[in-house]
Amino acid sequence: MIYFDNSATTKPFPEVLDSFVKVSTEYFGNPSSLHNFGGLAEKLLSQARAQAAKFLNVQSNEIYFTSGGTEGNNLAIKGTAFANKKLGRHLITTNIEHPSVRESIKQLEGFGFDVTEVPVDSNGRINVTTIENAIREDTILVSVMHVNNEVGTIQPIKEIGQLLKHYPKIKFHVDHVQGIGKVALNINDCHIDLCSISAHKFHGVKGTGLLFVRDGVKINPLLNGGGQEKNLRSGTENVAGAVSLAKALRMILEKQQQELGQLNLISKRLRDGLSQIEGTVVNTPEKHAAPHILNFSIPHLKSEVFVHSLEEKEIFVSTTSACSSKQKTTSSTLLAMGIQEERAGSAIRLSLSYSNTMDEVNTVLSAIKETIEELRKVMK
Amino acid sequence: MIYFDNSATTKPFPEVLDSFVKVSTEYFGNPSSLHNFGGLAEKLLSQARAQAAKFLNVQSNEIYFTSGGTEGNNLAIKGTAFANKKLGRHLITTNIEHPSVRESIKQLEGFGFDVTEVPVDSNGRINVTTIENAIREDTILVSVMHVNNEVGTIQPIKEIGQLLKHYPKIKFHVDHVQGIGKVALNINDCHIDLCSISAHKFHGVKGTGLLFVRDGVKINPLLNGGGQEKNLRSGTENVAGAVSLAKALRMILEKQQQELGQLNLISKRLRDGLSQIEGTVVNTPEKHAAPHILNFSIPHLKSEVFVHSLEEKEIFVSTTSACSSKQKTTSSTLLAMGIQEERAGSAIRLSLSYSNTMDEVNTVLSAIKETIEELRKVMK
Ligand SMILES: Cc1ncc(COP(=O)(O)O)c(C=O)c1O
Ligand SMILES: Cc1ncc(COP(=O)(O)O)c(C=O)c1O
Repeated sequence: MIYFDNSATTKPFPEVLDSFVKVSTEYFGNPSSLHNFGGLAEKLLSQARAQAAKFLNVQSNEIYFTSGGTEGNNLAIKGTAFANKKLGRHLITTNIEHPSVRESIKQLEGFGFDVTEVPVDSNGRINVTTIENAIREDTILVSVMHVNNEVGTIQPIKEIGQLLKHYPKIKFHVDHVQGIGKVALNINDCHIDLCSISAHKFHGVKGTGLLFVRDGVKINPLLNGGGQEKNLRSGTENVAGAVSLAKALRMILEKQQQELGQLNLISKRLRDGLSQIEGTVVNTPEKHAAPHILNFSIPHLKSEVFVHSLEEKEIFVSTTSACSSKQKTTSSTLLAMGIQEERAGSAIRLSLSYSNTMDEVNTVLSAIKETIEELRKVMK
Repeated sequence: MIYFDNSATTKPFPEVLDSFVKVSTEYFGNPSSLHNFGGLAEKLLSQARAQAAKFLNVQSNEIYFTSGGTEGNNLAIKGTAFANKKLGRHLITTNIEHPSVRESIKQLEGFGFDVTEVPVDSNGRINVTTIENAIREDTILVSVMHVNNEVGTIQPIKEIGQLLKHYPKIKFHVDHVQGIGKVALNINDCHIDLCSISAHKFHGVKGTGLLFVRDGVKINPLLNGGGQEKNLRSGTENVAGAVSLAKALRMILEKQQQELGQLNLISKRLRDGLSQIEGTVVNTPEKHAAPHILNFSIPHLKSEVFVHSLEEKEIFVSTTSACSSKQKTTSSTLLAMGIQEERAGSAIRLSLSYSNTMDEVNTVLSAIKETIEELRKVMK
């Protein structure tokens, strides 16, 4: 099979699963237990935290393990809102965020928070000035994703951070779920206060993730209980999950250093190849785009039909984000970019990992060409 | 080593880890993906849901996978409160609940909910009449644990359920985390609306659990986003986690059927042996007690010192619940039972699994006797 749906989820690295099993088997103690068998688990958890911190260039005490990107985003946004509501009740976000951000913010509206959703341009990109213009006296949070999951546009996180550093009351949250390991992000230079990642997007196991919370930033917990993770995220710690996440993070960042050039080449070949296929139009912008996501439309062909035609050739691609695809909603990012309903409804997302090869790209390009021709025939 | 801290966490069954690895490796697709590789994952997830439902004697559509007991409890309690706040704002619970229940309810007080905490008797048991007396016109939730995690007392869940069925407005939540696989609970007979379990307490992997929500009971999500788990728990599903949870559940219920008699014998031997050791007093009641938890005190010996002395003999036991033990707080259950601070502060919890043996019990009894004598000498 050729798997080009890596933005939906990735295949865990075997080494990551080995870590998970080893820790689960040999160090299964509860890190909160008083005895030294629990202490071993606690030590592994601390090491995983220190490693993850090092890889992200932040401090150990700024890392909070979560169950994934959705929890990280919910915790960051609701946690900040509830902890800071005395300072203000205004939140700023964009119109291309992942549902875990969008719906968290929507839920907050029900609790009396006020939201400004700034629009993106035709490339799916935010302009820093629109953020600046949206800032009010009572703004407490700005939440902007790093890499968009549907088209791959990279947001000007650094510029937004530079702007927000002049507003100490405003916390800056970045959903880095699609960016990590593919597009560099310096959490400190960008003045980010909260940053979420999810391990299953970079060959870790599902159900694990982490939230960076800058030292000194106060947020409320979503899950109350035994007080784990410095009272910010209660629940018996998933030690094996944390250790395996740290390993996946190390491996993906190594690949980013060593194989990004190759990924860029593959990505370029994919774009060039697509642009030569009659009847396709690429939606991912040329500039400020991540190397692993390529979104294109085949006007007049329903994207769902196309996905199923390719799957017969054992090629797995997506129409939009995985969570939206089953609900058959059109990509909200494409609509936000001003792309017409018809073209948006025929969109296909190809998303790569470092294990995809040039050969696979060529096979996929031929298959796309072939499939379009077949489907056109059927439709005639 | 002899591991008698199974209420803190258990060792995953090898078969459970095998399932986890197999699913993570071969069926790593995102169940929400449109293509049939995602479809395979979706199918496994449905099967795991159906199996878990069958084992619990409930319907598939009543099972919601979570990241563990803490999330299940938080979701059940806050979800019910926020979804039903127009019907009333009064909640009833007990004074021996796990922190994930207690702190969830406490957080709700901050949102204008009113709470009655009914007290337990000297056996750590709730009287149904105290619940009945606490019911008000505006009561919307009663949350009572099945088996207490510190002393093992079994609560009269069935009687409470029988009472509450006359109050259709009141939802009944049961924290079944310590009971599952050890003490039978019929969710339907007991008229339970919401029931949480956590896999790492029955040889599943950490970071997985499930919440039963009776069909028709409306609760609000805690984690908003892509709409997974029928919009009640967003986030890419941990398919391998769900499959491995179903397997652990099957295995523990089989053991319950086949090995409960033996566990009872071991438990009895432990209690008898302890009562013959001078200077110990058993805190777990004789009646209405689970077979796997035995709590006792060694007055005038700090329990922490005792735990560390036993650990030198490679015997791992606990002072109280794991999450409280590091915080060095005295067992709140013992205090709620009216046990004096001094005796409560010298409490030790032994918690068994089906893999513990009579030989281990005998070794532990000798070690306890020996350790008490050693420590007494040192103290003189
Ligand atoms: C940009 C973005 N944010 C958040 C998430 C949610 O992460 P998770 O699936 O780990 O809950 C995803 C993927 O689903 C994503 O693509
Ligand atoms: C009675 C009880 N409820 C809830 C929990 C929380 O479960 P988890 O550790 O999976 O978050 C525990 C254990 O920690 C428990 O003993």
